[in-house]
Amino acid sequence: MAEKGLFITLEGGEGAGKSTQARLLAEALRAEGHNVLLTREPGGTPGAEEIRNLLLFGKVDLSWRAEILMHMAARSDHLDNAILPALSRGEIVVCDRFHDSTLAYQGHGVGQGAAEVLTFLNDARRLVNCEPALTLMLELPRTQALERLNARGGQTDRYEGQAEAFHERVLAGFDAIASADPARVKRIDAARTPEVVSAALLRAVHDRLMVQGV
Amino acid sequence: MAEKGLFITLEGGEGAGKSTQARLLAEALRAEGHNVLLTREPGGTPGAEEIRNLLLFGKVDLSWRAEILMHMAARSDHLDNAILPALSRGEIVVCDRFHDSTLAYQGHGVGQGAAEVLTFLNDARRLVNCEPALTLMLELPRTQALERLNARGGQTDRYEGQAEAFHERVLAGFDAIASADPARVKRIDAARTPEVVSAALLRAVHDRLMVQGV
Repeated sequence: MAEKGLFITLEGGEGAGKSTQARLLAEALRAEGHNVLLTREPGGTPGAEEIRNLLLFGKVDLSWRAEILMHMAARSDHLDNAILPALSRGEIVVCDRFHDSTLAYQGHGVGQGAAEVLTFLNDARRLVNCEPALTLMLELPRTQALERLNARGGQTDRYEGQAEAFHERVLAGFDAIASADPARVKRIDAARTPEVVSAALLRAVHDRLMVQGV
Repeated sequence: MAEKGLFITLEGGEGAGKSTQARLLAEALRAEGHNVLLTREPGGTPGAEEIRNLLLFGKVDLSWRAEILMHMAARSDHLDNAILPALSRGEIVVCDRFHDSTLAYQGHGVGQGAAEVLTFLNDARRLVNCEPALTLMLELPRTQALERLNARGGQTDRYEGQAEAFHERVLAGFDAIASADPARVKRIDAARTPEVVSAALLRAVHDRLMVQGV
């Protein structure tokens, strides 16, 4: 599992613009001549998309342990069948959500930050162990995110449909993650226009590429 | 997660009569006045049955790591929402397949006994840790199992449809499991009539109940 490429993740709550920004970042990097795998979680491979479908739109609630293990199963397939092969070919992988989302949503959101849940998550993460070189954390206050989400419309999944207190815990979780690992996680103010945010992301990636000497 | 009841698993390859014997055992124990939860894996709860459906009849192959984690996710929901509550109510749980099947099928069958796979399985098992007090290992040579399976007919799942070499590795895996843990695993000759096998299982459970003083 040699990693020659660069593994970048985008993280943040709903409505922060992660999917759009992941696409813009991939396009900008490709325009510079990089080979880029643009992907997302949960999902990213046919098997993981089947699991995503069960997780986001399944009729049944799983126990919190089972829900975490399902996310890890999807991630494991995504790593084995898409991310690790791309990295070993020397590509840049741009992934919309990864381990930090599981910690924020399942640990801080569903699990309300209970020590038992965070310990279980940590042990499970060690089983499915691949850490991004750079994480771009798109930060947007919940009130502004809600305005964007309401304007967007569309089908609501299991997590989007949770109460406001859930989303507040998720955002607090992301904030704690960014504070705990500033070397990996770059905070990005996502309240600005898509063009300004996109330029900020590209700058952060250039900085990281310079460090890596890619 | 106090365990006051008795956790019994039935293990073995396809066609050994596990499902029939699990039902007969549950009926015999109920006739003696015990409260019994009769259940099976993968599955046993609504959430785990959804995962079972994906695992056994899904269109897509997952990576071996992801497949193991999916089995663990299903088991985790089954434990949290069915087995552990029943045990804490003091019931006898009779479960058709459990951790040993994952080791035999995913470790020895799919993974061909590779050290990397067995280590991963071991680590995952530690995350989803509940061990049966008694495992009844139904042993039947593959040739006899095939005769029974051909007579039975019906839809073939992902594992039943594998090549013969796969099933031989699975049976060798079960044999290794029984040899490694004789205090927990009781070998049962499943080539005999259902009535004789059923009596042997009930005897083994009685022996265990006497040890426990239940």
